[in-house]
Amino acid sequence: MGIRIGQGIDFHQLVTGRDLWIGGIKIEHEKGGLGHSDADVLLHAICDAILGALALGDIGTHFPDTSAEFKDIDSKILLMRSYQLIKTKGYRVVNIDATLLLEKPKIKPYVNAMREVIANILELPVDGVSIKATTMETMGFVGREEGLSAHAVALLETV
Amino acid sequence: MGIRIGQGIDFHQLVTGRDLWIGGIKIEHEKGGLGHSDADVLLHAICDAILGALALGDIGTHFPDTSAEFKDIDSKILLMRSYQLIKTKGYRVVNIDATLLLEKPKIKPYVNAMREVIANILELPVDGVSIKATTMETMGFVGREEGLSAHAVALLETV
Amino acid sequence: MGIRIGQGIDFHQLVTGRDLWIGGIKIEHEKGGLGHSDADVLLHAICDAILGALALGDIGTHFPDTSAEFKDIDSKILLMRSYQLIKTKGYRVVNIDATLLLEKPKIKPYVNAMREVIANILELPVDGVSIKATTMETMGFVGREEGLSAHAVALLETV
Repeated sequence: MGIRIGQGIDFHQLVTGRDLWIGGIKIEHEKGGLGHSDADVLLHAICDAILGALALGDIGTHFPDTSAEFKDIDSKILLMRSYQLIKTKGYRVVNIDATLLLEKPKIKPYVNAMREVIANILELPVDGVSIKATTMETMGFVGREEGLSAHAVALLETV
Repeated sequence: MGIRIGQGIDFHQLVTGRDLWIGGIKIEHEKGGLGHSDADVLLHAICDAILGALALGDIGTHFPDTSAEFKDIDSKILLMRSYQLIKTKGYRVVNIDATLLLEKPKIKPYVNAMREVIANILELPVDGVSIKATTMETMGFVGREEGLSAHAVALLETV
Repeated sequence: MGIRIGQGIDFHQLVTGRDLWIGGIKIEHEKGGLGHSDADVLLHAICDAILGALALGDIGTHFPDTSAEFKDIDSKILLMRSYQLIKTKGYRVVNIDATLLLEKPKIKPYVNAMREVIANILELPVDGVSIKATTMETMGFVGREEGLSAHAVALLETV
């Protein structure tokens, strides 16, 4: 049995006039993530963690932000494609653990819906996907509500 | 045998008039962590890493900062309770690795005492707990000594 | 079989008049990392991840920035020495996954060369080493090009 570890980190600015997508779910908020795709930091960090575990490059390699194909794309599609890449290599995901860094709003009401979306894409039971959240206690660009970030780790094993 | 990976991140402001608790140890310093509990970033990150590995929610779910029960609480109690939750699920900790981000003071003199406290709670040999530290080279809110942060990863396996 | 997980984080300021070393490779840029050694954040984060997995201390413990021996030292030497320490303990590296946080320049053209350097030192196939990169979307000290950071995770197993 082969096992591999991966990690991913992502950042987006928060700006008015954009929807806020986190973990594949649309969150009610007066600002949204700025980006070429739907700017879903959490899904992007998870994509990077599973790609990184197998050294398959990163989200920028596979889904370049200079490509019209990925303009405003639903990041769930990027996660599906990333997962297909690791399946093709003969691996499955054991579990994902992630932390969202966001000052506002509270995402707790949305966490279980996010976990179901992600678990579904990764063919995992919902308890194979963990999403945690913390503020940055008003410090830094996250604390000033100028942006948000997500960190994820992934454990993979051969099928 | 089942294995799982977890990660945790925490932040606290540094303010005068508070004690500085890190890794379950009181550190001599003119500032301390601001928080509802004793604001021990390192123990909080480790709680989140072991809870996250089993998708049991996060420290905010289990020990809400709106609850009087957790006002100024010793975070060693939070780590004990988090560990009980993972034991109940049939898991043990294989190892913990963490990095503290702090500009001042030097915590090296305290690291072995912290490791013993944590290893004791998690029923691990002391070499199952690693605590590393780095400054942020005067950059950002950690560099300006306005706050501190800790990042931790945990590996768990079924008993 | 014993397995262990490790993680590492490093930061350096970017200043004029210094070479920029990342992942053991010299990058063409008008600024370089400020530090006692060659200030290679990526190699430092990887050193910390493999040392941390076995609770062998951190890069500051083994290679203090107060020692003349390590002045301007090539961080590849620090990675070699860190790897020797884990080999002595009877472990090998399974895989490394890392993310570089850097606003400019693009490091994609250098990534495969970095992976080869690191894989060679750690006696791994090149697909055992993953290097990903992200900007911080102009936010924070990385976004303002005042500094750079790297985060790494490592999975180790007994030989």
